Amino acid sequence: MTENNTVYIGNKPVMNYVLAVVKEFSNGAKEVTIKARGKAISRAVDAVEVSRNRFITDVKINDIKIGTERIASEKGESNVSIIEIVITKQL
Amino acid sequence: MTENNTVYIGNKPVMNYVLAVVKEFSNGAKEVTIKARGKAISRAVDAVEVSRNRFITDVKINDIKIGTERIASEKGESNVSIIEIVITKQL
Repeated sequence: MTENNTVYIGNKPVMNYVLAVVKEFSNGAKEVTIKARGKAISRAVDAVEVSRNRFITDVKINDIKIGTERIASEKGESNVSIIEIVITKQL
Repeated sequence: MTENNTVYIGNKPVMNYVLAVVKEFSNGAKEVTIKARGKAISRAVDAVEVSRNRFITDVKINDIKIGTERIASEKGESNVSIIEIVITKQL
């Protein structure tokens, strides 16, 4: 779920990812990136919003990028949307 | 679905919204805003990505905002995440 201050959003409940984000900052991270694909994009936005509204209120959204990735599946290659949200502790 | 160069994403298929975005630009809009809430956020990102990868390749993403809105339902008030994506024709 977490690697190099990056939290990857999957199919778990939102709170799992909120806790992962909070843990990154409590471990001293100044900046955390939240990444998601496809239907998990909505959950990524939820995780960021819950994190900054209820748990780490002194973070700001530094950057939001969206894009398209090609992924291979049994049914062949297909496109999937991606999002990257970078949140930073306000100094 | 559309009002003042703004496309509101709901539960219809993604292509409905892609066509709405394309129509706004063909009607002369220089800038179109795509708005969505909750689970429709993923579809909003899909609609933007399909629009700019396959139909209107000369647009760029001008701004992306996320936030939280309070909405009233039968079960009382609750929070919902929102996204606003502004795309602009490159002059």
